[in-house]
Formats: sequence, C-alpha cells, structure tokens
Amino acid sequence: MEKHLPTKEELTESLRFAPFHRWLDLRIGEITDDGLEIIMPWRPEIISNTNPKEVIHGGILASLIDHTGLYAVLSQGVKTTSTAYVHVDYHRLATSGPISAKAKILKIGRTISTAEIFVYGPDGTLLASGRGGYPCS
Amino acid sequence: MEKHLPTKEELTESLRFAPFHRWLDLRIGEITDDGLEIIMPWRPEIISNTNPKEVIHGGILASLIDHTGLYAVLSQGVKTTSTAYVHVDYHRLATSGPISAKAKILKIGRTISTAEIFVYGPDGTLLASGRGGYPCS
Amino acid sequence: MEKHLPTKEELTESLRFAPFHRWLDLRIGEITDDGLEIIMPWRPEIISNTNPKEVIHGGILASLIDHTGLYAVLSQGVKTTSTAYVHVDYHRLATSGPISAKAKILKIGRTISTAEIFVYGPDGTLLASGRGGYPCS
Amino acid sequence: MEKHLPTKEELTESLRFAPFHRWLDLRIGEITDDGLEIIMPWRPEIISNTNPKEVIHGGILASLIDHTGLYAVLSQGVKTTSTAYVHVDYHRLATSGPISAKAKILKIGRTISTAEIFVYGPDGTLLASGRGGYPCS
Repeated sequence: MEKHLPTKEELTESLRFAPFHRWLDLRIGEITDDGLEIIMPWRPEIISNTNPKEVIHGGILASLIDHTGLYAVLSQGVKTTSTAYVHVDYHRLATSGPISAKAKILKIGRTISTAEIFVYGPDGTLLASGRGGYPCS
Repeated sequence: MEKHLPTKEELTESLRFAPFHRWLDLRIGEITDDGLEIIMPWRPEIISNTNPKEVIHGGILASLIDHTGLYAVLSQGVKTTSTAYVHVDYHRLATSGPISAKAKILKIGRTISTAEIFVYGPDGTLLASGRGGYPCS
Repeated sequence: MEKHLPTKEELTESLRFAPFHRWLDLRIGEITDDGLEIIMPWRPEIISNTNPKEVIHGGILASLIDHTGLYAVLSQGVKTTSTAYVHVDYHRLATSGPISAKAKILKIGRTISTAEIFVYGPDGTLLASGRGGYPCS
Repeated sequence: MEKHLPTKEELTESLRFAPFHRWLDLRIGEITDDGLEIIMPWRPEIISNTNPKEVIHGGILASLIDHTGLYAVLSQGVKTTSTAYVHVDYHRLATSGPISAKAKILKIGRTISTAEIFVYGPDGTLLASGRGGYPCS
C-alpha cells in the first residue's frame, strides 16, 4: 500500500491553519527524505530579554522544536495531530533572526514517532536542540 | 548569610520586563515556600487548532512550563538568567483559559537547580506537566 | 466494564520474571491508588564511584525510574510492555541503600500513559526523579 | 591555554574504575573529534524479557546512554564527574549483542555540557537514542 506523502503546499496550508503559526509567520523551508525545515522570522513580541541585547524567548524556540518535529512526522505521510512530549536543550542565546529549525525522523513507530530537531541562527550557529514524540492518530 | 527572597512585586517586575511575557499578559499568582504560580489568560493568537474547537498551542504551554520553573528558582533567591533544558509531557488539550502553571522546586543545586511544573485549566484539570533545569549564574 | 487491577503477588511475579530485576533483587513496596513503590537493596556491582565513597551508578537509578513507572502503569490495569521514553534528573549522590522508588500516575492515556517517579535514600532524601511514557499495547 | 585531551588508555582506565562498568564489561571503541563510542557485550543478567525472545533491559540502554555521553564530554578535556539529567527514547528492542553507543558533543558549556547518544545493535539498527547534560566540576 502506497502512502501519500503531502506536498510542500499541503504542509504549508496545514502549518498556516494555526493562528499561532501565522502570528509567528512560520514557513516550510527545505524538505528532505527524512525531515524538513521550518523558518521563523524575528518579531519584537517574541523577545525575552533586552539587556544587554535582545534575545528570542526560549519558549518560542521550544515551540519551534515542537512543531518542526510534528511537521517532519506529517511529511512522512504519518497521521498525527498532537505532541506527546518534547525535550529541549538550550545551547546559545538567539540574538538575531531569521531562525531555522531542522527536524529529522528518528523512528516512525506503530504507536509513537520520534524526531530530533536542531535550531540554528542566521549564521548557522546551533542555538538549541531537542526531540519530540508524536502519537499516531 | 541570609539570602534575600524577592517580593511578589520584584518578581512581577522581572517577569513583565520580557516583551513576550507582556504579550502573553502573564501574572504571578500564589507564591509558596517552595515555588509559585503563573497565570496566563486566553488570547486568540496563541491558538493552535480551531477545529473542532480552539486549543492553545502546545508550544505556549511549553513556554509557560519553562518560565514558571525559572521564576520558581528566582523566588528562592537563587540567581539564574536562563534555562538549560526543559521536558514537557502533554496530557490533555487546553480548550479554555485562564491557564495556571504551578512550579515546585525539586533541588536548589550548586551548578543547576531543577523544578517541576504542572499546568492546569480553569477547572483544575491537569493539561501538561514537565521539568526544567536552570544553571546558577 | 470493570478493569482487573493486578494484585501485589501478580505484580511481583511479573517484576521478578526479568533476569535483570532478579539480579537487582527488586521488590514491590507500598501500592497506592495512583502508583506504587519498588525497593532496591545495595549490591557491590551497581557502584559507580568508590572514591571518596561508594556511590550507586546513575544508570541504575535511571533503570529504577524506568521500571517503577512501568509497574505503576501496570498496577492501574493498563496493558503496556515497554517504555517509549524516560527523563531523569539527578539531584544527590546515592551513598547508601536500600533505595526506594515511588511512582505516581500523571495520566492514563489512550495511546500513551505517563508517570512521575521519585527515588529516595534510606533516610528519605530525594536522590533523583523523573518521568516515563509507556505506550498502550 | 592548551587543554589536555585524555588518551584512549586514560579514558579506559577511568571507565573501568567503576565496578558497574566492569560488571557490564564496557570498552571504549572509536574516538572521534567530537565524541566516542562505548561497546557493551551481551550478558544474561541484563535481560528484561525472555518471551518470545531475550531482550536487553531498557534501563541498561539508559545507563549506556548516560555514561557514553559523560565519557564523550571527558574526551574533550572537560572535567565532569556526574550527570545532571538524561533523556532516552526507545526505538526498537535490543535482541542481540554486542551493543554500540556513539556519543557526539552538542555543546561544551561554561556550566553544563550536552551530548547526544545513539545506541545500535550488531547490524547497525538504531535501538535507542537520547541526550545527557553534564555539569562542569
């Protein structure tokens, strides 16, 4: 049985359906065989600290990790509508944008699928990374 | 040597310093001996899904877990400015607000402090829970 | 439809079926409405460091957290045979035994159940804590 | 200031100092620029399930993930003596040995260093993976 793999347009439509994703102005970037990229621009309301310089809030990076993993699972033709868990490690402050999150599938499972996600700054510096688990629906 | 414990006013001022926290309109709730509560109202931009009903985005709950743990550590008079890691388990959809996040210190450590955080809906239902680690600065 | 809750004898039989659990000489302790306790004695092969004093290996505490969460889920009459993920925070060194691990159910879910687990030394000191997710089978 | 990078012999001596590591008969495998491999043979006491076939206990894989990450940090010349936290995702059952765990540094930090770790079966199948955080001492 062949699995339908969603197109970039279908993934984008699904991504932009969520008001929070539209507010963050998320876009699908590169799609690979085992994952995809989501790109997030800078915007003033997602700042955590402003002293000595503006830094994107860690929770925004956690959000990005969460839904980039989810969309990587969706890109494999697996049906999932929610996240079971997410783990995030913060490595460096995010002091400029846009931010790129790249997710790679670790395992497509019968009851749960897992992905690892890496978040990069505009110069390719690793800012945060983590993993998420997404139950099949 | 006595440690200065910040007042509710000082914690609120620090919390509201962050543009993202002001945008979320976060408020400090109850402060206990070993933790505190942060309250977040509903707002239309934090919605993930709208069909069949509106649901708060999981990433917003992850954010709330992250900074409620951080402020619980700050409430103990420990200096920390960032999160090292956060783990979040999602239990139920958040279909109404306001949302209450309650953090409890697990350990105030020499290099890292840890807290556990529970997120509740308006009727006291557990929606998500997790833990964060906050390095001493 | 009534769910059969396994007895302490049935849980013990299942626990002791695993060669690793027998080697660790694990026993079921107190069973509560929403969880249970597993007790692990000291044994010389589970030591990590011996200088300046003997300390139980962190991986052994992670194991204990993992299977105490699993048995807490089983104690609710839920069928699960494996762990999807486990997160462990280490708080203090385990310098004496026996060790007690107490698990409490966070959520019995349709596809995955989650538990939090706390590991204590003989004097009741919190040594480590964490959470695990267990898929329904 | 140049950092002393420990040799394979020094790392092995440190690894085998722990009674639990000797009991598991762990060996250092390949050492790379940003990580290393630890190899663990099969032994009957580390089995969890025996029906329908023998499977290595998940807690043993969690242990392996924990200390392979720690030794990857040590291999960078960073002093650390303990684990702050570990997160493990289980992907497939470990039905034969030897097991290989490969750790890669994510970030050498001022207060905490993080590594990701992948556990493989004899045929190169990914069995489990995770990440650990190791405070500087």
